[in-house]
Order: sequence, then structure tokens, then C-alpha cells
Amino acid sequence: MVSIKRLMGNLTEIGEIGKSEEGGITRMAFTEEFYTAQKKLKALAELKGYSTHVDRVGNLFITYNPGDCKKYIMMGSHLDTVKNGGLYDGALGVFSALEVLDSIREDKIELNHGIIVVVFNAEEGSEMGGTFGSKTICGRNNLEDSTFPEKIGTYGLTLDDVKSSQMDFKDIEAFLELHIEQGGILDSEKLDIGVVKGIVGIGRYDVILKGTANHGGSTPMKLRDDPMKKLPAVIEKLYEVAAKYPEPFVMTLGDIEVSPGMYNIIPQEVRLFIESRDLSEDNIEEFFGEIKKFLENSGFKYEMVKSIGNSSAYLNEDIMKDIIKGVEQEGYTYKVMSSGAGHDAEEISHLIPTGMIFVPSIGGVSHSPKEYTNEEQIEKGARVLFNTLLNLDKRL
Amino acid sequence: MVSIKRLMGNLTEIGEIGKSEEGGITRMAFTEEFYTAQKKLKALAELKGYSTHVDRVGNLFITYNPGDCKKYIMMGSHLDTVKNGGLYDGALGVFSALEVLDSIREDKIELNHGIIVVVFNAEEGSEMGGTFGSKTICGRNNLEDSTFPEKIGTYGLTLDDVKSSQMDFKDIEAFLELHIEQGGILDSEKLDIGVVKGIVGIGRYDVILKGTANHGGSTPMKLRDDPMKKLPAVIEKLYEVAAKYPEPFVMTLGDIEVSPGMYNIIPQEVRLFIESRDLSEDNIEEFFGEIKKFLENSGFKYEMVKSIGNSSAYLNEDIMKDIIKGVEQEGYTYKVMSSGAGHDAEEISHLIPTGMIFVPSIGGVSHSPKEYTNEEQIEKGARVLFNTLLNLDKRL
Repeated sequence: MVSIKRLMGNLTEIGEIGKSEEGGITRMAFTEEFYTAQKKLKALAELKGYSTHVDRVGNLFITYNPGDCKKYIMMGSHLDTVKNGGLYDGALGVFSALEVLDSIREDKIELNHGIIVVVFNAEEGSEMGGTFGSKTICGRNNLEDSTFPEKIGTYGLTLDDVKSSQMDFKDIEAFLELHIEQGGILDSEKLDIGVVKGIVGIGRYDVILKGTANHGGSTPMKLRDDPMKKLPAVIEKLYEVAAKYPEPFVMTLGDIEVSPGMYNIIPQEVRLFIESRDLSEDNIEEFFGEIKKFLENSGFKYEMVKSIGNSSAYLNEDIMKDIIKGVEQEGYTYKVMSSGAGHDAEEISHLIPTGMIFVPSIGGVSHSPKEYTNEEQIEKGARVLFNTLLNLDKRL
Repeated sequence: MVSIKRLMGNLTEIGEIGKSEEGGITRMAFTEEFYTAQKKLKALAELKGYSTHVDRVGNLFITYNPGDCKKYIMMGSHLDTVKNGGLYDGALGVFSALEVLDSIREDKIELNHGIIVVVFNAEEGSEMGGTFGSKTICGRNNLEDSTFPEKIGTYGLTLDDVKSSQMDFKDIEAFLELHIEQGGILDSEKLDIGVVKGIVGIGRYDVILKGTANHGGSTPMKLRDDPMKKLPAVIEKLYEVAAKYPEPFVMTLGDIEVSPGMYNIIPQEVRLFIESRDLSEDNIEEFFGEIKKFLENSGFKYEMVKSIGNSSAYLNEDIMKDIIKGVEQEGYTYKVMSSGAGHDAEEISHLIPTGMIFVPSIGGVSHSPKEYTNEEQIEKGARVLFNTLLNLDKRL
């Protein structure tokens, strides 16, 4: 039986390591705060009688396998945070998984699988991008990238550390991750649980509008070649085309840079930083394709440059059913939805059947000290994780 | 008789000090390059038999008064440049004035006034803003500004240096400045001379559109409070309202700053940096008033903050007639126009009758190595300056 008291006790005792006076938590990957929290968690797990292991890139594995089963189910999340982040992003998934383990042990539930709770390092951004810990155990880093050795060197890691941390997944039959939603859908629709069907892909393009820099005082309006004047049409087009796609499609114009960028100089260049996310990678490419076509026909002087493209991932439909069953066992409300943020589960989903459970983020806020999920919601999430694990264990 | 050969010889010999291999000239105020050029010019003037004086803020005065007249006419411009600027901005006015002096001396023309050629320091931006040299001789610095001593201290100057450089204008009856237009009006209309009727005032405001920063992946489009979406309406309004005012009114949206400014974060704030210039200060205020009214009625969350306001200056109408007469004596074409850029003449116009002569800037380019005015245009400008000085000398 899941104990919300024990879960919250562990979450606040270990999960608050890195907390500042203002309430934000800074426990970034590879820092002292991260390793302090990890060591404390490792010691706690050993005290409970679980076996532990830390790999060479800083991921912690806590294993419970009293029946000496040959096959495993893995669950977990990450323990690192962004700078001045919240208590729940990552840590909630870690301590919920630990709580499920404790409940199984306490209730002496016999399973057909050994259980591994994984505590990832470097899910948030580092020199190597996001989800580095999970990427590494999946062998999904791009080792051909000539800058990679230097990047991992920043954290004292070698290529050998990375290669030796790759895991063999042949005996691991499934992965489960509980995470805060980081969006406002569950909160605004007053729902308990999000059953994640997929993690969106990401496309990023820059549009650079070009003109001719000149003196803003002595150049009459009619003699200007001013790229700023073209900006409204481009922004309006972005929102207009974005509105055509149904959820979970999103488009963000997160930044604009003006060059040279002075009150009294007509700009030479205006650069727009555009991101789009969707479960459908086709939609992302189609969206940017339509923007490109608009620019081609606009008569504007411009450049359009692709910045990054990340693939989307669909999660396992059978595990989604296990989760929904686990929700219905408790009589909770739920919604099948996609994740707009990246997660460790996305990496692992490319290798083994993977499922993800969302709990509400109040106000949709995350990566902020204001990040919050209340105890009742956490308890519901942990119970669903518990039920899902048992459902999975029986089914597989 | 004005000698274009002598004028160009001096301009390229002294005016090119600070020239880089790429052709740009960097002879910023108070630097070694500035003082090297000034010393060389001072030595040249003394060689010709003129008397010279350098005040304590670095302005050079070259005086020719063979008739021992009690009253003076002053003419000149500045010798400092922006970083990587051109050959003509400032220097052309200095060497044209010197050429007029040389012509008068050579032709043994008897005048009713002594002539002072002034060579200003720090017309371009410094810690103290623009037109520091001319502001100082006019006693127009704000000495009450508590940060002023520190600012002038950057250049090794004291308050006493500034105060002692203030001039008594009671015996100086007029000021003339020849300058490149720095805009493209004369060039595009194929005219020889601009007769400047005034120097525009400047108004600067920031408009800050406000929203709520949130995750650009996990926040659905319909749950966003995105200030970027409101940007097109504001920019369109700026250009729409600006178009109502006749020349010389200009409006420049020179920069946009987005906060926090990342691909995957819906912006919290979008800040627009807006400048407007006109001879009519009322128009500037009316323009920003209309933008303010639009924002008030828009329902947008915003702030609107005044950054600076500089007054405009009308030049002396009788001197304008002297210039026009000087143009017509040669059969040149001209246009009565305003200056969109600030000049030393603006400072002096607040104390004594002041006139300004523009020559064309090819393509309207300035503050750039590409700044250019051809020899024929320079010769025409110098002749008009010569004629105007003689007209003024007779009339006053």
C-alpha cells in the first residue's frame, strides 16, 4: 500500500537538496548538490536492503529481486534539476518509484520480475544536450560527433565511461516513468492522471529578414530598406498557419534578435527564432514548409535556416492500457495525451516497451520555484504507478 | 578662389589619419589618432601664418584677422569620427573652412570680420553624449548632473577644464558649418546643395508588451498568454501612424528585446525601442500620444516608458538667404531641408545666428567606410561656403 507520508518524507528530505533561501532548487547534473542527493538516496536504498549500482556517467540503479527472476521491469526518472527549478520535475518520478518498491516489499507482494528503480543524471540540459543519462544507457549518443569527447570532458568523462555505461536491455521488458505534466492541461481540465501516448518531436528554424542598415535620423521613410516593416506579416503568418493544426501541435516564437539593434539605426537584419512541436513530424515539416512558401512569394529579402530537428516517439499501446486499468481500479479521472516536453522515457521507448504517467502541474508551471503538485495528486499518481507495475508484471 | 586640389590634399593628408587597411577611419574623440590629426592641422595652420589655440577640452581654433576687426564670424565642424567611420563626416567641414580661409588670404580679400575656423572634439558619441566640444564652448553641458564629473574624468578632464572652455560669444556674430547630408535626399534628387533650415528633435520611447513565460513544449496554444502574438499589431500601428506625418518626420523601430528569449519559452516580455525625429516637437509628442492611445484601447498588458527627448533647433533665416544667394551666384541646384542628424551647429544656434550647408552623401551612407562625396560636389560645397561667408561679412 502506497504511503503518501513516506513518499513526501523522502521527497522533501532528499529532493530538497540544493534548495535556496528563495525556495528554488538548483541541483544541476554533475554538481556537488546532485551527487550529495544521489549518495543520500543510495544509502537509504541500501538501508532498506536493496542492492545499488552507480554507472560511470552518474546514473544510480536500485534493484529489488527477492524471487531471483530472470526478467526485469525498470521504472524511474531523473534527480538533476535546472537552475532554480522546482521540487517535482524528475524527483517526483524517482521517489514515487522508490515508494512503489517499498510498498511491494512491505506488502510482501510476489512478482514475476525483478524491479530496477533508475535515477538518471543529466536529463536537463548539459553540454551534451538533454537526457544524457538515459541516452547513454541506451547507447544513443552520437559518438561520431567530433566535439563529443570535449563536451563530456567538461564533466571529467571519457568515451570509455560513456561506452561502458551502455546497458543490455534483453532482460528488461518494460520501462515506466511518472512525471509532472509541466503543462496546464490536467490542471485546467481538473483531471487526475495523464496517460502519455507519445512525446512530441521538435523542429527549430530561424527566419532572417534582411534590409539595409542606415541612419535613423537622416534617412527619409521613403528611402528606407527596413526589414522591421516586414516583421508583422511574418509573425501573423506564423500564428495563422500554426492555428490550422490540432493539439498537441504548438509553435513558439521565443526570441527576436535585431542587428545592429540601436534606437537610431534602421536594422540590417531581424532574426526570428521559431520552434514547433508535434507528435506528427510531418505536421512540423509541413508547417515550416508553408512558412517557407509564404516567404518565397513575399518578395522579402530573407534567409530560412534549420536549427534542429528531434524525432517524436510513440509510447507502447499495451502499457497505456495497463495504466488506464490502473487508473480505473482507483476510480480516478484521466486523459490520453502527449508530452510537449522531452523525457528519459523517450530515449528508452526506442529500445523497449515504455509507458509514462503524468500528474497535474498547478498552473502548468515548471522549471520554476513555483512548480507545484499537491499531495493528493501525488498520492494518486503513485497509486497508479503501483497498479500499473502490478498489471504489467502479470501481463508480461 | 577655392582650390579643390588643395582642399582634397589637406583632407586626405590629415583627414585620413586613423585609416585602417580596410579603408575605414577610426579617429575617436580623445584618442591618440584624434590628437595626432589635430596637431598636424595646427602645425599646418601656423605654417600658413594663422594663429591657433587649443582649449582644455580639445577644441582647436584657427584665427585669421589681418584687419584687426573687433567682430568675428566662426565656421567649422568636428575632426573626431565614429569607430570605422568615413573620410567626410566632420573632416569635410573642417577642411572646407580652412580652404575658404586660404582662398581669402590668397586673394587678399578684405573683410569686416576676423574669421575663426573651429575644429571640434567629441561631436560623435562619448561618455558625455554627442557634440561635447561645441556644447562646452556654448556652456550647454548639464553641470548639475552628478555623474558628469565621473564621465569627463574618463577622458582626464575636470569640471574646471569644462568651465574654463566656455566662450564669450558677444563678438562672434555668426556660425557656419558645412557637412555631408548623411541621408540620401540630395543624392536621390540629384541636387548640389542642401540649405538647412533646422535640426530635428528626437523622442525615444520603449513599449514593453507583457505576457506569462511558460514552457513552449507543454503549454497548449489556447492556454498561452503570449505577448509575441500582439507584436504585429503594435508594429503595424507604428508604421501606420508614422506615415501620416510629412518629411522630415521619421520613425525607427531600431531594436526588439525578448525576455527570457529562448526557442522553447513563451516570452514574458517583448520590448520595442522606438525613436521619432522631426523639426516639430509637437509632431513627435503627438505621434507617441497616438501610440499610447492605441495601446490603452488594445486590451494588451503593456508599459510605455519615455527614454529621451531632445529639442529641435531652427537655423537663422537671414543666413539661409545668404547661403541661397551663394548657391545662385554659382548656378547650382539646392533644396531647403532639415537635418535628421545632430550637429555642432545645433548647439551654437542657441546662442548666435547659425547656418548650415549640406553636400550630397552618395547612397545616403555615413558612419561607414562606404561614406562618399565626390570632388565635384565637394568643390561646389566649398564655393558656396566661400560665397556665404563673403555675403555674411558684407551684410552684418
